[in-house]
Parts: sequence; C-alpha cells; structure tokens
Amino acid sequence: MFSNALENFVATLNQKTPKELYEPMQYILSLGGKRMRPLLAYMGNDLFNGNPADVHPAALAVEIFHNFSLVHDDIMDNAPLRRGKPTVHEKWNNNIAVLSGDALLVKAYEELIKAKDKHIKPLIELFNKTALEVCEGQQLDMNFEKQPEVSTNEYLHMITLKTAVLLGAALQMGAITANASENDAKHLYEFGKNIGIAFQLQDDILDVFGNPQKFGKQQGGDIISNKKTWLLIEAKKQANGSTKEALNYWINLKEFNASEKVNAIKNIYETLQIRKQAEKEMNRFYELALQHLSEIKANENKKQELKVFAQALMNREI
Amino acid sequence: MFSNALENFVATLNQKTPKELYEPMQYILSLGGKRMRPLLAYMGNDLFNGNPADVHPAALAVEIFHNFSLVHDDIMDNAPLRRGKPTVHEKWNNNIAVLSGDALLVKAYEELIKAKDKHIKPLIELFNKTALEVCEGQQLDMNFEKQPEVSTNEYLHMITLKTAVLLGAALQMGAITANASENDAKHLYEFGKNIGIAFQLQDDILDVFGNPQKFGKQQGGDIISNKKTWLLIEAKKQANGSTKEALNYWINLKEFNASEKVNAIKNIYETLQIRKQAEKEMNRFYELALQHLSEIKANENKKQELKVFAQALMNREI
Repeated sequence: MFSNALENFVATLNQKTPKELYEPMQYILSLGGKRMRPLLAYMGNDLFNGNPADVHPAALAVEIFHNFSLVHDDIMDNAPLRRGKPTVHEKWNNNIAVLSGDALLVKAYEELIKAKDKHIKPLIELFNKTALEVCEGQQLDMNFEKQPEVSTNEYLHMITLKTAVLLGAALQMGAITANASENDAKHLYEFGKNIGIAFQLQDDILDVFGNPQKFGKQQGGDIISNKKTWLLIEAKKQANGSTKEALNYWINLKEFNASEKVNAIKNIYETLQIRKQAEKEMNRFYELALQHLSEIKANENKKQELKVFAQALMNREI
Repeated sequence: MFSNALENFVATLNQKTPKELYEPMQYILSLGGKRMRPLLAYMGNDLFNGNPADVHPAALAVEIFHNFSLVHDDIMDNAPLRRGKPTVHEKWNNNIAVLSGDALLVKAYEELIKAKDKHIKPLIELFNKTALEVCEGQQLDMNFEKQPEVSTNEYLHMITLKTAVLLGAALQMGAITANASENDAKHLYEFGKNIGIAFQLQDDILDVFGNPQKFGKQQGGDIISNKKTWLLIEAKKQANGSTKEALNYWINLKEFNASEKVNAIKNIYETLQIRKQAEKEMNRFYELALQHLSEIKANENKKQELKVFAQALMNREI
C-alpha cells in the first residue's frame, strides 16, 4: 500500500520543472530503504483500528522527511555513498543537494496537509517538534566530533534526538489518525522512541561485532573514524593502565592499517567487557519500550505485532 | 507590532540548545531588513478589516521563511556579506548554515500552525505552494548562470518564482486571515506578484543606473558578474554590428578594470535605449498590479494605502 503511494508521489515529481531540482528528489526516494517509518505510522494507525487511508499522508510525509534529512546529513558528513549509490551532492553538487533537500522538506508538509481536517493540527505540531529535534540531534552529532569529552548521557540524548524521536513520532502520527486517546498516543510515542534508542545502540554494537555481509556496512567504520559511540565513550571512561594507554595510542594515531586498528580496539572492548555492557544498555531501553507498550489500552494481538516487529528489529543480526 | 512579535520570537531562540544551531537563526533574523513581507501580510489583513492578531503567525512565518531562503541562497551564491555583515556560512560554516536554515524553515511552520484553526489549512497550502516556487526560482537562477542563452520570458518567469510570488503570498495570507472572498484574495495575490516583478526589474535598473549611496549596493555588480538580467538579455538580443562586438568583447573579457567594464556596458545600454525599455517593462507590471487592485471589492481608502505603498517601493530611488 505504501509502495504504491510512494511510487505515485515520485511519479508526480517527474512532471515538474526545473528537472535539476526534482530529479534529485526522485533519485533519493527511489534508492530503496526499509521504509520503517511509514510502516510504523501504519502500525500505529492499525493498533487503534484506524482507517489506513487516513494515515497515508503522514506515512508519506515521514518518509519524505527522512529522505530530506539524509540528503542534508550526507552533505554535512561529506558522505560519498548512500545505500551503495552516490549521494545527491556527489551525483550532482552541494547546491543542488541543499535546494532539493529544502524542496523535499516542503513536500513533506504538502503531503501532511492532505490529512483529515481534524488531524492536521496535531499532526503538524508533532511533525514540527520532531523535525526541530532531528536538527538539534544532527547539530549535537557534529558538535561531538570536535568536543574532546562526551558523556554517555550526552550521547544518549543525541541519538534520541537524531534517530529515536522520528520513530516515536511515526507511531504517534498513526495513533493520531486513528483518534487514539492522548495517553495511549503518548505511550506509543515512548515505545517507538525507546526502541529507536535501543536500535541505535545495536547499530553501534554491530559496527564493531556484526557480520559485515549481513550488516551491509563497512565493519569498524566507527572505530576507524574515532566516532564517539556509546562503546568508545564507556571504554575511555573505564580503561586504566596499559589498556588506557593502548586505547589512547590507537585513537591518536594518524596513520594506521584499518583492520589493525579495528582489531586492537575490538580487543580493548573485549577486555573491558564493553560489548556486554552495551547490550545491557540496549536491553534496558528495549524493556522500557515494552513497558510503555504494556500501558496502552488496545487489542493485545495488535500490541503483540508491534512487539514482534520490535524484536525483529533488535535481532536483525548479531 | 511586528517588531515586538519578531523580538519575542528571537528571544525564545535564545533559550534553546544546542546554541550552534540557534545562534545563527537569531543572527540572521537580527540583521534587520525592511520587513516588507510581514508588512504586506498586515496590509492584506487590514484591507478586509481583519483582526491584526489573526495575521501575526503568518506575518512571522513569512519573514522567517524569507530569512531561511537568504541563509541557503547565500551558501549557494557563495556570498560573503548580507546586509553589510558576514553571511551565516561565513561567520560559522556551511554545515551550520545548511542546518540552521533547515530549522528556520521548520520554525516558519511552527508559527503558521498558531493561526486560527479555520485559517490553518488555506494558509499552509498557500505557504507550501509558494515555498516550492521559491525553490524552483532559485534553481532556475542557478541554471541560468550556466545556460548560454536565456530569453526575457524565461527571466521573467524566474524572478516571478524567486521573488514575486512570496510578496503575493504575504498579501494573500493577510486576506485569508481576514476571511476575504477567494476572488478578492486572488486579485490581491496578483497585485503583490506583479509589484514584485516590477520591483525586481527596478532592482536590475538600479544596479546599473542607481545612486550607489541611496541604493546601498555596489553599482554595476550585475554587470561585473555578467548576470543575465532583463537589461543584459535584451541588449544581447538587440545589439548589432559594432555594438554587438563591443558587448561580446566586454562579456568575454576575463581580466578587466571593474569601473571600465561598468561604464562600457552602461554606454551600450544607453545606445540601445535599454533603460527606457526596462522602465517601460517595469511599468507594464506595475500597471498590471494596479489593475488587479482595482478589481478588489474593499474600502477605497485602504486600497489607496496599498497603491501608495507600491508607489513608494517603485520610486525608492532612480
């Protein structure tokens, strides 16, 4: 259902000019992806027996917004590839990536305003709040690169804003379009937000310990770039003596063999049992998410579907 | 009234973090400017005896949007200065300019959604349409830099999108918040749009023939950069023989004395009577605007105020 809606949307862009503006928008939306955010919107709507037609606009808006943020984040991160294909600023140029990203953001609102009249205001208010938080999260992420010390709390705050709130908002938008109670909608938001945090922590773990074939990303990318993930932050905090020395040595080394560095840091993580701790932290947020789910007054079978989905996300590969 | 609303808005940004995101937003909004777009929104509201409190959100939104577009356009144009001060990307960096621009765009919607419930949908629909057109105009402007031939019609289309529609939209948003009839709102939009085109044509004329002290910009900036304005496009079309040769010579010259080039092109414009023609074209759009104003069913004294305002804009300096 969503694929159709997205295809129709992309087809409307095909008729627009100037093509230098609209082609990059079609391109990024056609690169694929899990479409997890619209799926969550539909599931949020279904949980409260909503009409799926009513959540279409929000589902499209949230996916378009996500793609807007990818286009602009890729500029800021200087990323050459997205889903194995050249990023928009690589394929075209920075100016086109800035402007077509802007147009995508406006397009998200253009879809959102197609919601049922009584849902428009709560949907857009939630969308605005979330969009600003995502911007704040991206800014914090950039700040952390230059900041010598980042605490795990700061890190958790950053990933909450940059990644998790949009998952919560997608679910809540579904709930809104099904006229759920405010209390239920809030718990569903918290469910999604905490799953999002757990999901990002898992991403950090998989970067180091995942199977690169299944995970689909370069293994140890975070280690190579000294990315201040939960794992590195905790390792820096806990390391002592020779472990601390080794950690600092590898972090400060300017020229190195990538796999040597990955292995060395991985060993340090093992020594400090960082993996186990990260998994514990991930599970803490996962459990918190389930607690919020249990608070929701809705059909237990449908709640079970959300739990199964969350489990599938969490066990994607270790 | 608007200054207060804007000051209050800027003050709310002061309390937000991360400051790297919110400071540039405060900065650009505090650089000054004529606040012409909010003024038009208030005038549109007043024309139909609206309550000025009802147009506050739209007036703020349109000014915030305008500043968003300045921040991103300045990145794309590589502009070092804005209103005599460093541009956001110069004072901070490109990434911060991209992201704080994005946040400004979201903030515009955050203000807009504060409008009266019954005005929200028509306001946001008009805002979305206009925002996309402004993006299209900016893309066309960038395209024209690389395009060898641009017609005056293409140029007029570009300035309509990039500059004029936002003036029309500001007025129409005022009309919407005063519950004007659709027909009156449409004519008011066309009034503003055509004034906007005339205003931009005047800007092109003033760049060449204006008094730099009064105009406040470097004289001949468009000439120096071979900017394809209405004047240059027409001159290229109409020039023959030695005039054509001279025009091409100066356009293709890589190294030159700026004031020599400005004077040479100015002389060519005089020879071809381009100034007179540009003024005629400007007046054509000005008259078109007045025609639309005359179609509006509203208090004649208030219509007169809009006419006086348009006249003041048009005679700002020759």
